[in-house]
Amino acid sequence: MSAASADVANAPYEAPAGLAGVSVARTEVSDVLGRQGFYHYRGYNAVDIARRGRVEDAWHLLLRGDLPTPQQRADFARETAELRDLPAGVSELLPAIARLSPPGSLASLRTAISVAAQAIGCKPWTDQSEAETAEQALRLSAIMPVLAAQLFRLASGQQPVQPRADLGYSENYLYMITGAVPADRARYAVERYLMLTIDHGFNNSTFTSRVIASSGADLGAVVTGALGALSGPFHGGAPARVFDMLDAIGTPDNAESWLRHAIEHGDKLMGFGHRIYKTIDPRSALLHEVARELHSERVAFSEVVEKTAVQLLAELKPGRELYANVEFYAGVVLEAAGLPREMFTATFACSRIIGWMANAAEQISDNRIFRPLANYQGPTAPREFPEFWRPTEP
Amino acid sequence: MSAASADVANAPYEAPAGLAGVSVARTEVSDVLGRQGFYHYRGYNAVDIARRGRVEDAWHLLLRGDLPTPQQRADFARETAELRDLPAGVSELLPAIARLSPPGSLASLRTAISVAAQAIGCKPWTDQSEAETAEQALRLSAIMPVLAAQLFRLASGQQPVQPRADLGYSENYLYMITGAVPADRARYAVERYLMLTIDHGFNNSTFTSRVIASSGADLGAVVTGALGALSGPFHGGAPARVFDMLDAIGTPDNAESWLRHAIEHGDKLMGFGHRIYKTIDPRSALLHEVARELHSERVAFSEVVEKTAVQLLAELKPGRELYANVEFYAGVVLEAAGLPREMFTATFACSRIIGWMANAAEQISDNRIFRPLANYQGPTAPREFPEFWRPTEP
Repeated sequence: MSAASADVANAPYEAPAGLAGVSVARTEVSDVLGRQGFYHYRGYNAVDIARRGRVEDAWHLLLRGDLPTPQQRADFARETAELRDLPAGVSELLPAIARLSPPGSLASLRTAISVAAQAIGCKPWTDQSEAETAEQALRLSAIMPVLAAQLFRLASGQQPVQPRADLGYSENYLYMITGAVPADRARYAVERYLMLTIDHGFNNSTFTSRVIASSGADLGAVVTGALGALSGPFHGGAPARVFDMLDAIGTPDNAESWLRHAIEHGDKLMGFGHRIYKTIDPRSALLHEVARELHSERVAFSEVVEKTAVQLLAELKPGRELYANVEFYAGVVLEAAGLPREMFTATFACSRIIGWMANAAEQISDNRIFRPLANYQGPTAPREFPEFWRPTEP
Repeated sequence: MSAASADVANAPYEAPAGLAGVSVARTEVSDVLGRQGFYHYRGYNAVDIARRGRVEDAWHLLLRGDLPTPQQRADFARETAELRDLPAGVSELLPAIARLSPPGSLASLRTAISVAAQAIGCKPWTDQSEAETAEQALRLSAIMPVLAAQLFRLASGQQPVQPRADLGYSENYLYMITGAVPADRARYAVERYLMLTIDHGFNNSTFTSRVIASSGADLGAVVTGALGALSGPFHGGAPARVFDMLDAIGTPDNAESWLRHAIEHGDKLMGFGHRIYKTIDPRSALLHEVARELHSERVAFSEVVEKTAVQLLAELKPGRELYANVEFYAGVVLEAAGLPREMFTATFACSRIIGWMANAAEQISDNRIFRPLANYQGPTAPREFPEFWRPTEP
């Protein structure tokens, strides 16, 4: 066979933009069944886990492979609570890092988790034991909320609050942000949000975590890269932007004209539509329930906006099946629980890191480096060098 | 059509592990023709550019779209030289960052470029003008070598050297590391390496940069993630490991038995084989030439190891077509030019960031978020909850 015909025989598969509809790996971590409006963690209905459990349950399920027994849960909660203290060399850097970006910035958090990974001594996973890698995965997940909370307080001119090992994950998180042990209702609401957002198939940041892990890089590189991906407005940056939209709409009777104008002018509505779900996002449904229980003033208004937007999208974008996604009620819930708007995306990072770590562990367990091809569409190579380009001789 | 049959009709394409052989985007930045042992930057033979030009030529080509005229080259060299000064708030953090990891660590560099991006004020590209994003891309590329050099000196107990705007890119780089303006031969050698490694299709870190950019994230997130990917031993971490192998082999007459033993025991030889090239890596060929010109003592030994390894790989892994890749002679060249071994991967990061920025810019210009699927292979969902799992009621 000639080289030319071999090349034709091996012509690459050309994937759709954004790898839409392309399965890039096998996984046992989670799955999203978009047409059924159902997603799960290792086979268990994720909404059921979120409705009934604690963050530590889902965390144990993702990292250790199954839901914990009561004894395992107690042990795991204690083990992870004790990992919250920041490693030496990190606390003293936080004020200077916080100063460079606004409160709640994911850029600050990116720098902080990167330096924390250095301080923990994360090495390429090829160069350390599986147990060391697993321990670092837990440690990074345990300190992410501490960094997020302390950076927020520092950037807002407040003293950082040290973590308390006697509090559960969610209580401790709210405590470190507000300085007070939260009411149970607030803790319950934030915990639902955190549990619902731990993992969700191969979303952009989770995919990033696997791509980076596949190079053999340390978990600090994995989490720093994934956090960067999450900071994008098309991914984790959305919940705060839903609020910006609600603010812009202002009042219920303004919803229809505002939304119609936006859709007709081609603006993407924040909080609606999902690459995978073509029906109600099950996360949105539970968050809507939680929001109602919180009796937030914003809930009634949000419901009007949701209903109007879904109707208008069906009318103006027929066949697109655009519904409220997880971001739509997320902000309402987090705000009602006492979290400042600036902290919505950082809070998302605190739960999603658990998914990143589970996915990185799985990638490592059966690895092949991600190294795709591209379809070159520029000038035919080799191109003639231009006359004017006179190279400097060495 | 029922929901079930629609799902079958839309069954996802299942890509090979690591997205091998899958084209994931269209590009005009660069291409690698693996069977022909040829690669190019925007259509121009990359080896020819590397042989004849300066870093600024290739940088201009990738970022501005074509090779510079003499006037454009002079302007671009001045413009980028003036961007080398570290932004306020960064220098004072470098000693503490450097202290947490060994000299040459990509983890330190990851933290430092992340904090520098904060200081520059990088925002999601959706939230700023194209001109601002383009300026930040240049700025981050201009300061990467400064951060790499200063962190190295700090971690090795030396005073950092400030960049000089009157030196070219490569002279300045060596100057900042060693504290002395380099001999022309050393500058020439390092410049060949830098130019050869600016871009190379959708390698793991470049792909990472596009995946992160596709979320709308700021360029700080893009470069931090890509740098993390590059730090992996299967990607940018290889050149220093080639040296570890050469050290382990020790002497030319030990090469055959050492290499045979390694191959027979299934060890991956560092510096051999490439996902795309199935013939001589053209980067390796030019670096081999450069190495010879430097008359390094290590060259003759490396040549014996290369020749022996290629013969043994053909004998023991027939049909795999494993040849020396870019990493094999990279270390020899960089060492002979006066760069410490610990700095090989950081030096790679300094050139490759130019490729990352060009690819991020292209991704941004016609974006769809990367959001692939995975093939779930775990227990059938929905799984029954275990008896022992007694959820805590809120």
